[in-house]
Amino acid sequence: MRETNRQWVLAERPAGRPTVECFDLVEEAVPDPGPREVLVRTRYMSVDPYMRGRMRDADSYAEPWDVGEVMHAGVVGEVVESNSPKWDAGDVVNGNLRWADYAVADEDQLVAVDPERAPISTALGVLGMPGRTAYFGLLDVGEPKPGDTVLVSGAAGAVGSVVGQIAKHAGCRVVGVAGADEKVHWLTGELGFDEAINYDTTENLRAAVAAACPDGVDVYYDNVGGPITDAAFANLAVRARVVVCGQISLYNAEERPTGPRQLGELITKRARVEGVLVRDYVERYEEANERLARWVGDGTVQYRETVTEGLENAPDAFLGLFDGVNVGKQVVKVSEYEPG
Amino acid sequence: MRETNRQWVLAERPAGRPTVECFDLVEEAVPDPGPREVLVRTRYMSVDPYMRGRMRDADSYAEPWDVGEVMHAGVVGEVVESNSPKWDAGDVVNGNLRWADYAVADEDQLVAVDPERAPISTALGVLGMPGRTAYFGLLDVGEPKPGDTVLVSGAAGAVGSVVGQIAKHAGCRVVGVAGADEKVHWLTGELGFDEAINYDTTENLRAAVAAACPDGVDVYYDNVGGPITDAAFANLAVRARVVVCGQISLYNAEERPTGPRQLGELITKRARVEGVLVRDYVERYEEANERLARWVGDGTVQYRETVTEGLENAPDAFLGLFDGVNVGKQVVKVSEYEPG
Repeated sequence: MRETNRQWVLAERPAGRPTVECFDLVEEAVPDPGPREVLVRTRYMSVDPYMRGRMRDADSYAEPWDVGEVMHAGVVGEVVESNSPKWDAGDVVNGNLRWADYAVADEDQLVAVDPERAPISTALGVLGMPGRTAYFGLLDVGEPKPGDTVLVSGAAGAVGSVVGQIAKHAGCRVVGVAGADEKVHWLTGELGFDEAINYDTTENLRAAVAAACPDGVDVYYDNVGGPITDAAFANLAVRARVVVCGQISLYNAEERPTGPRQLGELITKRARVEGVLVRDYVERYEEANERLARWVGDGTVQYRETVTEGLENAPDAFLGLFDGVNVGKQVVKVSEYEPG
Repeated sequence: MRETNRQWVLAERPAGRPTVECFDLVEEAVPDPGPREVLVRTRYMSVDPYMRGRMRDADSYAEPWDVGEVMHAGVVGEVVESNSPKWDAGDVVNGNLRWADYAVADEDQLVAVDPERAPISTALGVLGMPGRTAYFGLLDVGEPKPGDTVLVSGAAGAVGSVVGQIAKHAGCRVVGVAGADEKVHWLTGELGFDEAINYDTTENLRAAVAAACPDGVDVYYDNVGGPITDAAFANLAVRARVVVCGQISLYNAEERPTGPRQLGELITKRARVEGVLVRDYVERYEEANERLARWVGDGTVQYRETVTEGLENAPDAFLGLFDGVNVGKQVVKVSEYEPG
């Protein structure tokens, strides 16, 4: 056990693209858990695009972080001290904890992670929030039917890669958009996407989407916004469904676009655009968890992780999301997990 | 009966805002109906914003008109010659006919208009396509519930004015956006809207919508697009529904916006945006017709018409739509109807 607890605090709010100056690493004594609390040692910590919203002092679906406050993150860790009858030292748990080596958690704030089922880091990715977001966003909002064409942006990311594979399993033609040839090859190779478009080397995205989706796009699962979304909207099929899950290409814009423009295609195509937030489905998490675990177990859903070593590198891992550095889920490995 | 038939043809496609140069008035002999056809004399002709789309040589939900072709319009007219057992001279009929004094119609292309029920021109407005668009767009796509706040843009137009009144009837708080004080007074006076905003004299539309809709906008019925829609999106309530019915503020843009931007509010609010096209509801027209007629009969739904006299002035009537000249439904009176 370390003597001190390193924690990342929000040093300043970013204007536009965040930099390492926005983060401060501070040290304090490892805290003691109170009654019905446990001390969790972080093994893996998640960095996610939505965190950019919490750095902003604006109304969003997640509370903004205060400057000087320790930042929150999905964590998979190990209970090292327990004042709760629910948890024993050595238990692997998942919870919304901190960008830190250790955190004290209320006994009810944690869920168990089964280290026999899959590598524990997957509780932050394919078997965690991103996997469930893909599951509910695609199936409940996108409503894919066999034979539909499903277009996914951010297709090689934590959510997009799962969306595409579930859509294949649902009998759809699946086209992914990603920003590197390595990603495109992963999508059309291992993951079984029908086609993939490298937006970074494609001059006319609209024409590329049209060529890859000759019958139009029945479901567009949007993780990015911006020009890729423009190209998708120009190719919607009649009665298309657009799932708005993320808008990562816009999160760092200093001048944010004022609002939606050119919704005319929605009239022409009688299409539906709807936002998805996974926490609305909390009553059905178990459904998603069970199916995703089964699909990962039988190979229906494959995954990759991009692992950054060391809590000290967490800001870099986070900033890399906006450059598309990661393939699959980006996690930070904070300490070594040694199965008990 | 006139000796000649005046007809408006599309002279050239507009670049940006159409002008009178886009229209040519040509004369030909009054045509003779063939077997199972009738000759209809136009009493009223409709001009509608969607016609701007037909002047463009681009894929839309309505076929583009060819240059040199007589333009189509919703018409209420009187049968003056019939080669069909279905229709007699003197019958008042409604159909998609022409910008013309007379048109030949197939016997199956017409529906009967009951001149006892309401002024026959209403078959082009509150009891016609605009009324049904309001009915299905609001009720089927917007899904208003009692207590919801419904915001309507283009609120004093043919569709918007009906939307707001049906929403009141459905137990909603209704806020309209229009472009003249006269319209605002009509909305909050006769039509019973709770509030109305004159966008032309309001500096901060976003703040004005926030003030008029303190609990957020549950249903936004969009006829206009552009800055008013930006202000609406900034004030959506959780689980809001946006009905995209028209985008009149964008129809004449020379540089059309590239696509949707800033869909982030849809995630935050898990809101839905959906386009509506009335012809998708053709199987249920009778439902809308009956209810709208009942509501007009008992005063639940009131209406106004802006009547332009003379076929020769039809282009001006059409162009005025883009300046918001009309209050309620804009029609062109082509010849006098004298009930038989």
